[in-house]
Amino acid sequence: MQHLLENIKEYMDMLDDTQLRTTVSELTVAELIEVWDFLNEKEKLRLFLLFDHDVKSEFITELSTADQEFLIVELSEQATKNMLEEMRPDDLVDLIQAISPENRESLWQNMSEESRRETEFLLRFDEDDAAGLMTPRYAAIQGDITVDQALKFIRRTLDKLETIYYIYVVDKLKRLTGVVSLKQILAADDRALIYDIMEEHVIYVRDDTDQEETAKVLEDHDLLALPVVDKFNRLLGIITFDDVIDVIREEQTEDIYKMGAMGGNTDSYLESSVPQLVLKRLPWLVILLLAGTITTNVLSSFNDLILAASFLTLFIPVITQTGGNCGTQSSTLMIRGLATDELHFRDIWKVIGKEIMVGLIIGLSTGVIIFLRGLFLPPGIELIQAITVGISLSAVVIFATVLGALVPLMIHRLGFDPTVAAGPLMSTVIDVIGLTIYFKVAMMILGIG
Amino acid sequence: MQHLLENIKEYMDMLDDTQLRTTVSELTVAELIEVWDFLNEKEKLRLFLLFDHDVKSEFITELSTADQEFLIVELSEQATKNMLEEMRPDDLVDLIQAISPENRESLWQNMSEESRRETEFLLRFDEDDAAGLMTPRYAAIQGDITVDQALKFIRRTLDKLETIYYIYVVDKLKRLTGVVSLKQILAADDRALIYDIMEEHVIYVRDDTDQEETAKVLEDHDLLALPVVDKFNRLLGIITFDDVIDVIREEQTEDIYKMGAMGGNTDSYLESSVPQLVLKRLPWLVILLLAGTITTNVLSSFNDLILAASFLTLFIPVITQTGGNCGTQSSTLMIRGLATDELHFRDIWKVIGKEIMVGLIIGLSTGVIIFLRGLFLPPGIELIQAITVGISLSAVVIFATVLGALVPLMIHRLGFDPTVAAGPLMSTVIDVIGLTIYFKVAMMILGIG
Repeated sequence: MQHLLENIKEYMDMLDDTQLRTTVSELTVAELIEVWDFLNEKEKLRLFLLFDHDVKSEFITELSTADQEFLIVELSEQATKNMLEEMRPDDLVDLIQAISPENRESLWQNMSEESRRETEFLLRFDEDDAAGLMTPRYAAIQGDITVDQALKFIRRTLDKLETIYYIYVVDKLKRLTGVVSLKQILAADDRALIYDIMEEHVIYVRDDTDQEETAKVLEDHDLLALPVVDKFNRLLGIITFDDVIDVIREEQTEDIYKMGAMGGNTDSYLESSVPQLVLKRLPWLVILLLAGTITTNVLSSFNDLILAASFLTLFIPVITQTGGNCGTQSSTLMIRGLATDELHFRDIWKVIGKEIMVGLIIGLSTGVIIFLRGLFLPPGIELIQAITVGISLSAVVIFATVLGALVPLMIHRLGFDPTVAAGPLMSTVIDVIGLTIYFKVAMMILGIG
Repeated sequence: MQHLLENIKEYMDMLDDTQLRTTVSELTVAELIEVWDFLNEKEKLRLFLLFDHDVKSEFITELSTADQEFLIVELSEQATKNMLEEMRPDDLVDLIQAISPENRESLWQNMSEESRRETEFLLRFDEDDAAGLMTPRYAAIQGDITVDQALKFIRRTLDKLETIYYIYVVDKLKRLTGVVSLKQILAADDRALIYDIMEEHVIYVRDDTDQEETAKVLEDHDLLALPVVDKFNRLLGIITFDDVIDVIREEQTEDIYKMGAMGGNTDSYLESSVPQLVLKRLPWLVILLLAGTITTNVLSSFNDLILAASFLTLFIPVITQTGGNCGTQSSTLMIRGLATDELHFRDIWKVIGKEIMVGLIIGLSTGVIIFLRGLFLPPGIELIQAITVGISLSAVVIFATVLGALVPLMIHRLGFDPTVAAGPLMSTVIDVIGLTIYFKVAMMILGIG
């Protein structure tokens, strides 16, 4: 594979279309995507045109918006029609939403009547809700038929269905009343009624359930697919596990961005323009900068102390950085625990107890290290100065460790997303309070002020 | 549900065992787990004993190690036997590996001959590899039988299989030669041969494939299950999508911990002891602290400058914090892009181009803000001082933005995990170099030194 990737351009030049088509037909879509990145526009178009319709329809959903636009402009009307016909309705909706309005129009015109109807139905829902993930191509039957009838029905309609492994049981008003797996159907007697073998306690989500919550429901119950119902309990569609994996990945990116002091969308880096990147980064930076300048006032208010004991200046970055790191560690543990439902606000006393213990141990350890470092390594400070720095750092670390754990729990309790208290904001807060502790402790030990 | 959770203890006291069993039978395992956390040991045992065998076997795999140990000690021999009989082999292996050696022995003795054989087979593999996720309960057939025969075989054996939705085709030596989905079988003519309808290009992983890599393969191909083969291409077992979701979650926790300057395992916070938490946190803290103390030497070397222009001290924390934030943003974007395979080392020139542009814009913006802030807000500094701080911050930000992007790409190129260059380490490096830039720029503008 690696060999093929490196030589794909030469391969493409060497082979005629028939030979290339044979080579390509042996690759999976995931492998083709890897090849894609190495090609120029002309080569991309040549490759794409050699795909079968079903590969085209799957392939295009995996591309960047820019590549999708490019293909839609370049493809003939007939090629577009054939490709759209093979696309899953939820992928079609994503494509429609991603591309620019002018190209959207040409897509609509090349869609079949049925696809257009399905797409219009799905477009009514918010893309960040459960309904934004669903496909209307599910298997539904009524409960009063036999296993044999159900199996025949599935075999007849399976071309049109996204998954046949769960079959949902609905009443005459399309309300969800049960679910039966294909495994249960195959295990049952042919003459048994679906009513008698179905699971009545169906796990479902409402159309307006948040997508992260939806992912958790599917995950907690190890389901292949999850039905989506409206407020009258009518079945609207199903969400399959592969779409849920995508949600988990996206959520992961969002959380990691928040920890890296960035907001905004999770678009691909290479595709984001410079203004988009600035927009993602600058707002948080400015907020943190403005909050961080409070340290200027803190330092200014201890001006006399700093003049009298100028060695204190030398340790300002180490004190703030170490305090920030400890606070970040605590807040990271809390944020993760809250996100995975492992921690709750009711655990606050256990958390405080643990963090005080942990804070004491790491506070004393880091204090001893900076004491020894100050005393024995250049620039070299006096004993009383090293003691001062050691004790101050210990105090800052203990404080930062406990605060770092408390703030996310509080924010969560107030109903907000605790991830805002991740690394960068926590460090900034600790810079301000940590410096104050540092100087106060120093004043006490040195007997100044 | 919330209501039930809050009152579960009263419910349990009010109801006799038969009534409680009825209530409990209507809850899913995920719901029962939520209830569980509110109970004391006696209540936990009472509840657990009311579960059906299959619920018990599923439930215990979701518990913490402490709760698993507790139940295994408390359960009668017969109850343990019944529960183990229902457990999936991969869950059984996880349980065996989690509990203490003394309780492990009693588990072994209560396992059936078959379970013990399966478990011993699975225990031969590394738990972090693909083989550590697999179950030996897959459906395998030979290719020379008809669709009708295959369907009959599946219906006969489905009780023993983890999934029947993919059926693997093997030769006489158990080598993997194809795969056919249940959907394809149901769609095909009863008399067709499996050979003629199967997919020959099987996506598989080797037993020693890393589990994160395994997750990506299943995810990229939207598969329900993935076969695991040995080096002779013999089928060893299959990995199902739900186990892959668990791997993705675990990987997410690991990455987030690394961004929060923590290493070690991803055990639950509440279950980790204080020494375990210290071990997870202290090593990184000490490394960062020792690296961070280089700033002490930097500051000491610019001692004369600081004495001549003491206002520079006031902005040390803001400069280091903002530089660190910019570097963290860049490194986060790179780490995430590399992890999701969206970025590669070959993109380095595009990245440098973008980061220089982004760095210029955010550098100038933050420079102007700190300039205005210094000039107009307390403690208030002079014009030339504000200019100095503004230009210095811009320079640090531009540098930090570009460095933050380059370091993870370099680390990745060298074959290491770029996540080590996440937030905390990046901030520490930038503290050292950023301060040097700050003072050098100040010296030039102020004409000192």
